[in-house]
Amino acid sequence: MANVVILGAGVMGTAFSFPLADNGHQIRLVGTHLDGDIIEEIHESGRHPRLGSTVAASVTPYTYDRLGEVIVGADMVVLGVNSLGVDWAALMLGDVLSSVPAQIPVVLLTKGLVGDERGLHILPYALRAGLPAAQRSRISLAAIGGPSIAGELAERRDTCVVVTGEDEALLPHLANLLRTPYYHVWPNADFAGVEVCVAMKNIYALAVGLVGGFLERDGQGGNGAVMHNLAAGIFAQGLWEMAYLVEKMGGKRRSVFTLPGAGDLYVTSMGGRNSRMGRLLGLGMTYSQAKRERMPDDTIEGAQLAQAIGPAVERMVDAGELEGDALPLMRTMIDIVCHDAPAEIPWDAFFAQ
Amino acid sequence: MANVVILGAGVMGTAFSFPLADNGHQIRLVGTHLDGDIIEEIHESGRHPRLGSTVAASVTPYTYDRLGEVIVGADMVVLGVNSLGVDWAALMLGDVLSSVPAQIPVVLLTKGLVGDERGLHILPYALRAGLPAAQRSRISLAAIGGPSIAGELAERRDTCVVVTGEDEALLPHLANLLRTPYYHVWPNADFAGVEVCVAMKNIYALAVGLVGGFLERDGQGGNGAVMHNLAAGIFAQGLWEMAYLVEKMGGKRRSVFTLPGAGDLYVTSMGGRNSRMGRLLGLGMTYSQAKRERMPDDTIEGAQLAQAIGPAVERMVDAGELEGDALPLMRTMIDIVCHDAPAEIPWDAFFAQ
Repeated sequence: MANVVILGAGVMGTAFSFPLADNGHQIRLVGTHLDGDIIEEIHESGRHPRLGSTVAASVTPYTYDRLGEVIVGADMVVLGVNSLGVDWAALMLGDVLSSVPAQIPVVLLTKGLVGDERGLHILPYALRAGLPAAQRSRISLAAIGGPSIAGELAERRDTCVVVTGEDEALLPHLANLLRTPYYHVWPNADFAGVEVCVAMKNIYALAVGLVGGFLERDGQGGNGAVMHNLAAGIFAQGLWEMAYLVEKMGGKRRSVFTLPGAGDLYVTSMGGRNSRMGRLLGLGMTYSQAKRERMPDDTIEGAQLAQAIGPAVERMVDAGELEGDALPLMRTMIDIVCHDAPAEIPWDAFFAQ
Repeated sequence: MANVVILGAGVMGTAFSFPLADNGHQIRLVGTHLDGDIIEEIHESGRHPRLGSTVAASVTPYTYDRLGEVIVGADMVVLGVNSLGVDWAALMLGDVLSSVPAQIPVVLLTKGLVGDERGLHILPYALRAGLPAAQRSRISLAAIGGPSIAGELAERRDTCVVVTGEDEALLPHLANLLRTPYYHVWPNADFAGVEVCVAMKNIYALAVGLVGGFLERDGQGGNGAVMHNLAAGIFAQGLWEMAYLVEKMGGKRRSVFTLPGAGDLYVTSMGGRNSRMGRLLGLGMTYSQAKRERMPDDTIEGAQLAQAIGPAVERMVDAGELEGDALPLMRTMIDIVCHDAPAEIPWDAFFAQ
């Protein structure tokens, strides 16, 4: 039995408590400053309002001001905040890590990349960089990647993921803590590759989502034809670009065509907020307008990633640090999100290098 | 302008005439012995009854007994028969190839693998093997691979494919003959890799299709959860196994995560006969029963592939020529189709090597 602290009580953080609870672990589910209502409802009824599922008895909800208290005795911290919450999480953890006796695994469910003047970085390293220098070696960074819709995991539907991290020797242990008859977990030592794939899939799912809007705009063909060919071409180009960036950032192609890349892009393309925003863009709205008028309160992960890395990617292409020809679809999506460009697929630039 | 003979007037063979016609080529569309009604209807109305589209004026329909006449002056032959029709096509072509002055490109739209006592072979080589020895060097084998639903291509919806073949120098020429503003064609010299991917995708689309039946059997979760995670896990394992067999047969992984592998598996998983049969199997019917009672007249390409290679794969695994651990999902699908085994996903065997 392990004591696990989950920081972030959104749908994914909370869904992750189900396999943990089924394995007999004790879970302390700590809401962020945005999760107050969720924590209150779980206290009162045990039910997560957005997930629509009732958590196990071994899950105890806490507000974030009690993090210092609940981290005492923890064997593992799970980070379930969204990508914009990583800096906040680093501040919070920095304050309390001195209560942890030795090095503790921190497992990120959060997906994303960070772009700055030095280049692109995977999110776990941004978390570490946000900690006070004295605390940085107290965490061992790890992450979960793969096709995992939270609501399905919470209903114990078969779900396949990898666990990756900077300490390869730790991965089989983490996999054992997590694995259940419905939660299939494989260790994967390709930390950079997994993290690049699971972040980039959001931008490409947004691209696949454009097709919904194109189809509404153009209608079905005379013979009933829809646009699966078009979506599949975008899907394949997304993986092609992922392979380029994965290798550029020191990862392995194997992660691209397995769970972190192809598997996660598949599931993310089946619906959700990226798809809904993609449809609006495909219908001809600009990103600014669609966000403001239609989805003002929604986190659109693909758009968030475009904003997080767009300026850095543009600078790196200009400086020759990234081959622009290798990322035409990503650059198109950055133009759409960051510069309100129209949604036009650059077919002639696909599969160029 | 080129003279193109398309042998096989099914939906894919006929759809392929649209980009050819839009490029100004003359097309002779030759029906097989099973296509008599189609050829008659195109003669009378110009409309393909199953495709639901009207062919261009530059498409002239013929019955197969006139192949010897129409092949005179042809610059390219396109093979649009189904995988069971390749032997027949070889017999037909063998009789008439002596009318072709020099070597002629034969472009296969047909997908499949052949298994025999010597191992597994890609379909173009089976076509060549079926020709009289004196004619075998008269054809230059090529093929199209990638996500291409026929009805969408016939409606000129954006479609991305690769053209591959045994003569790399010929590929840019073939791509130029085919390419239109909606038909995006890339040369890909990985003949073995492309052919293995586009064949195997059918067996894995059948596997993804099982999920439709599982979901109907088990129903939605209490929170409305469906089974996208499960489908995505199967999708990723399919690509993983594809990568193994592609390398085993001399192909390149690049084809797995681009159009021939991931792209084509994506589009094939979106619906069609593999998905319909998969659903019946996922609901608990045996393959024999489902085929006999529900889909007696349908060609189910994933099942056809399982039958075509099943005995050879089983023998090769027993002989150590294939690592059984590397193909658990393929072997499960072979068991389901060839031995009426129940549809159970071998999760613990996934991603093993």
